[in-house]
Amino acid sequence: MHIGLVGLGKMGGNMRTRMREGGVTVIGYDRNADVSDTESLEALVEQLPTPKVVWVMVPAGGPTHDTITALADLLGEGDLVVDGGNSRWTDDKIHADLLAAKGIGFVDCGVSGGVWGLQNGYALMCGGSTADVAKAQPAFDALRPEGESGFVHAGQQPGAGHFSKMVHNGIEYAVMQAYAEGWELLEATDVVDNVPEVFASWREGTVIRSWLLDLLVTAIEDDTHLDKIRGYADDSGEGRWTVEAAIDNAVPMNVIAASLFARFSSRQDDSPAMKAVAAMRNQFGGHALHTPPPPGGDANPD
Amino acid sequence: MHIGLVGLGKMGGNMRTRMREGGVTVIGYDRNADVSDTESLEALVEQLPTPKVVWVMVPAGGPTHDTITALADLLGEGDLVVDGGNSRWTDDKIHADLLAAKGIGFVDCGVSGGVWGLQNGYALMCGGSTADVAKAQPAFDALRPEGESGFVHAGQQPGAGHFSKMVHNGIEYAVMQAYAEGWELLEATDVVDNVPEVFASWREGTVIRSWLLDLLVTAIEDDTHLDKIRGYADDSGEGRWTVEAAIDNAVPMNVIAASLFARFSSRQDDSPAMKAVAAMRNQFGGHALHTPPPPGGDANPD
Amino acid sequence: MHIGLVGLGKMGGNMRTRMREGGVTVIGYDRNADVSDTESLEALVEQLPTPKVVWVMVPAGGPTHDTITALADLLGEGDLVVDGGNSRWTDDKIHADLLAAKGIGFVDCGVSGGVWGLQNGYALMCGGSTADVAKAQPAFDALRPEGESGFVHAGQQPGAGHFSKMVHNGIEYAVMQAYAEGWELLEATDVVDNVPEVFASWREGTVIRSWLLDLLVTAIEDDTHLDKIRGYADDSGEGRWTVEAAIDNAVPMNVIAASLFARFSSRQDDSPAMKAVAAMRNQFGGHALHTPPPPGGDANPD
Amino acid sequence: MHIGLVGLGKMGGNMRTRMREGGVTVIGYDRNADVSDTESLEALVEQLPTPKVVWVMVPAGGPTHDTITALADLLGEGDLVVDGGNSRWTDDKIHADLLAAKGIGFVDCGVSGGVWGLQNGYALMCGGSTADVAKAQPAFDALRPEGESGFVHAGQQPGAGHFSKMVHNGIEYAVMQAYAEGWELLEATDVVDNVPEVFASWREGTVIRSWLLDLLVTAIEDDTHLDKIRGYADDSGEGRWTVEAAIDNAVPMNVIAASLFARFSSRQDDSPAMKAVAAMRNQFGGHALHTPPPPGGDANPD
Repeated sequence: MHIGLVGLGKMGGNMRTRMREGGVTVIGYDRNADVSDTESLEALVEQLPTPKVVWVMVPAGGPTHDTITALADLLGEGDLVVDGGNSRWTDDKIHADLLAAKGIGFVDCGVSGGVWGLQNGYALMCGGSTADVAKAQPAFDALRPEGESGFVHAGQQPGAGHFSKMVHNGIEYAVMQAYAEGWELLEATDVVDNVPEVFASWREGTVIRSWLLDLLVTAIEDDTHLDKIRGYADDSGEGRWTVEAAIDNAVPMNVIAASLFARFSSRQDDSPAMKAVAAMRNQFGGHALHTPPPPGGDANPD
Repeated sequence: MHIGLVGLGKMGGNMRTRMREGGVTVIGYDRNADVSDTESLEALVEQLPTPKVVWVMVPAGGPTHDTITALADLLGEGDLVVDGGNSRWTDDKIHADLLAAKGIGFVDCGVSGGVWGLQNGYALMCGGSTADVAKAQPAFDALRPEGESGFVHAGQQPGAGHFSKMVHNGIEYAVMQAYAEGWELLEATDVVDNVPEVFASWREGTVIRSWLLDLLVTAIEDDTHLDKIRGYADDSGEGRWTVEAAIDNAVPMNVIAASLFARFSSRQDDSPAMKAVAAMRNQFGGHALHTPPPPGGDANPD
Repeated sequence: MHIGLVGLGKMGGNMRTRMREGGVTVIGYDRNADVSDTESLEALVEQLPTPKVVWVMVPAGGPTHDTITALADLLGEGDLVVDGGNSRWTDDKIHADLLAAKGIGFVDCGVSGGVWGLQNGYALMCGGSTADVAKAQPAFDALRPEGESGFVHAGQQPGAGHFSKMVHNGIEYAVMQAYAEGWELLEATDVVDNVPEVFASWREGTVIRSWLLDLLVTAIEDDTHLDKIRGYADDSGEGRWTVEAAIDNAVPMNVIAASLFARFSSRQDDSPAMKAVAAMRNQFGGHALHTPPPPGGDANPD
Repeated sequence: MHIGLVGLGKMGGNMRTRMREGGVTVIGYDRNADVSDTESLEALVEQLPTPKVVWVMVPAGGPTHDTITALADLLGEGDLVVDGGNSRWTDDKIHADLLAAKGIGFVDCGVSGGVWGLQNGYALMCGGSTADVAKAQPAFDALRPEGESGFVHAGQQPGAGHFSKMVHNGIEYAVMQAYAEGWELLEATDVVDNVPEVFASWREGTVIRSWLLDLLVTAIEDDTHLDKIRGYADDSGEGRWTVEAAIDNAVPMNVIAASLFARFSSRQDDSPAMKAVAAMRNQFGGHALHTPPPPGGDANPD
């Protein structure tokens, strides 16, 4: 099959490579001419045979919305747009409707696999009609891992793919936090002589063996106490949306929410809430106050 | 009544004053001769009429244990020891047994009220036999607030008083954290023009009016954004024991435990757990790592 | 002053009474003719002198929106609408704009005080321009408690009042949960002989004295172990919105979120998440599975 | 090598089989004569060549303590006891000292792998001196999985093995809870058409692929909505000890603690804490109370 791929960054670039290795003819477009196969989105669309299939792999929010809006003008009846970015699942309905007004199909596709996807394949979670998903199936087959798993048509409803990916990421936050808390406890005591060896041993035969464990083992092989890095973790939105979806549906979600909040805390130089706690303790018990770090004392301006 | 009071620090000193104002004859002993009424524990015991009642108000753990052990030798049949410190309730059984072997009674008494107790009275929670509690009742009546509340004979079992005080403090942690989280949210947004005024308004008519709220209002009157203090909170043990008692009794305790953990976090310059999370994110997604603060960059060496 | 009051339910009815006792001339309208002073919203508006002030006290969401939309047609330049319901603060901007298009002012007003407000006064948190707030000040003064607190003009921005009330309620959830966890622990052990007496004693002199504590003391005076009620707690939205606002602003909110989730859990007859945990434990460890309650076994169909 | 194995239950029985398949000569003893190779502990010890190595695989606490105490009398200088049960790591020092007084060595060995260990091998985490570990190494080699991982000599200190296993289990609780919360959210909405297919797809290429995920996929293949089981999860102690160790070391542990508390909640027919919340809501807001389930209405008496 032929496919147009918009967005050739860290993810899109590798996906172009893997699709080509899988026999898909890919025409890529990126604002960065050095990596782009065409000079414009228009040129990309023009070069595709009908029915045209365009995979959008740009940042979620504005960039994705703008690209899909532009494609709604360039594509026509029977064509298809796949959104493979990290869009919020509630955006998918809007995009599906926008495209449907022109007779253009839409599939939302959550993609997992990170920098390892090129080699191991990307896990794909799709939402959309069976007919639309079928149109892009050769691309999905090229991207997905080689085994039986790693691809799912999660639902007919637009957003089913991104919703699945969102929940995947919420789970991911909490699984990471679980290993992280266990690691901190082992590091905090001197009961165990060699924490990296204990973690490495867990890779086989244990109940908690996993790919994330493998990754942590690799990280602490190189930097035993992780002295070289700061305990700072960004979040890309999916964790927030997962907790919000839980709240909307009255689903208790203590563990994933706590993992999200731990990321928020990790980015604070000082905790406003704990200032208030310290202030109250001082008021009732005369407990000593600590002074805040000096201005400009932040070594991590980013 | 006459009472011996061992330990004349911030708490004990004020309690001596309040007991005297309430008509109790207090002989105080402290290692610090400047504040002590007698030169030794032996002298203190000697000066008391029989039955002798000695109130111990020294730090929990070793100091309290050593003082009670010494008193077991100095006192005799029918005398009484009151432990008013922050002892762990499980220590009380040990002390009660130690004293009972000499025919000496024991009452454990949790004391709340902090620096305001001298003026407002101290809330008292006692454990021990009815007969033993009665022996010290005049002292309790002098110390307690003037209203109908503020004193309870919580149970016949040694430790009932400290257990009640422990749970009180666990609740206290979480109530403070509740206000603190709300305050942080109001501070983080610009929806409200004057956060201190909002908090001050809550002091009457609302569901959340409380003494801790009053204290926070006072604190942010002086230092609107609490810029002068660091978000650092110690813990004195009761919160930990409360969560441990919950675990022993299979009681879910998410809110108090989270408040305790927030204090632990507040004392970390960097979070080991979040280093591990950052390391895993870097491994699977190539997410940028942040460097840790430079050595010696800690502005809060205590 | 004269004011129109729309909605004479549990809250609105009492507020009419308190406003009248405070010297405000109130014309009330309710769909329920038994309590209404007028036969229609139109009649109510007609009877008010100019500038007309109408206080809306109906359920948040649709009913409030419909009432304000109707008032936008009935009122004119210089008149004022006050929304005293539990509206989400983000709705206020929409309503303010809708009314501003007709020259009608808008004040959002969070109201706390529950069934005690008639007697003790209602705590009020307002958002809107200083001029608009001034127009309704006599009504606010009649409603608020008699002391210096209990009223705040939280911000010029529409929504500042409801945002403050929302955070108030978020804090309220967690303060309640704090007492609840402490109570459960005391009940779970036999260390303390009389839990209600311990709680009652905390009303004076302690750090955790508060109005919510007073209420819990009253409740367990009547029903020591709360045997007569189920551990079931609804939520009216503010707690959800508080956590969502925290997520939007990257504010860690473990304690309030856990309190919200505890309410969600309280309404589940069985926990789906714990089914999954039980299933995994069975798979790896052969741990016995429990069977679910029989169909129809739910004694609380509402 | 020759080894004595005490305790031939679900775990011990399979371990005997795997050790024998790995070339170890195992003499097993169990109170249940049907599975035992000898008639008594004494007979077992007698039949072992010197230095005698005895692996204890009985329930933690009393049974393990009693068995080790008995072995201290039966074994002698240079012999070795391995505790492979789920003992609390703080018990290991006591047992090591007890045995050391007779010149008997001690190794504590945490064992993971559950019912799959016979087939896949058991992950082993050992604590003790290098010399003592070496004495039992052929048994460890027979039991462990075939790859490079799955065995670690975690530390020289008695308890290092069980401490590692304890942290492993704490992590396990939270990893399970992470999947469980994600599953509940997917089940609570109708965005995704086929939840089991989504979970199954995650087994390859995703960040969250793991053995526990595989197990959950298997469980929901058979019982899509887990209708056949109740959301009830026991805990065997390690999760409690992990959180207690975190508290002792001032390590924040929100996620693992929340997972533990979720298990406690899962075993309650009604939540005492939420009774208190409901009572307070009723007091201030007149919110309706729900009645508790009728007596005898519990379908899960165990």
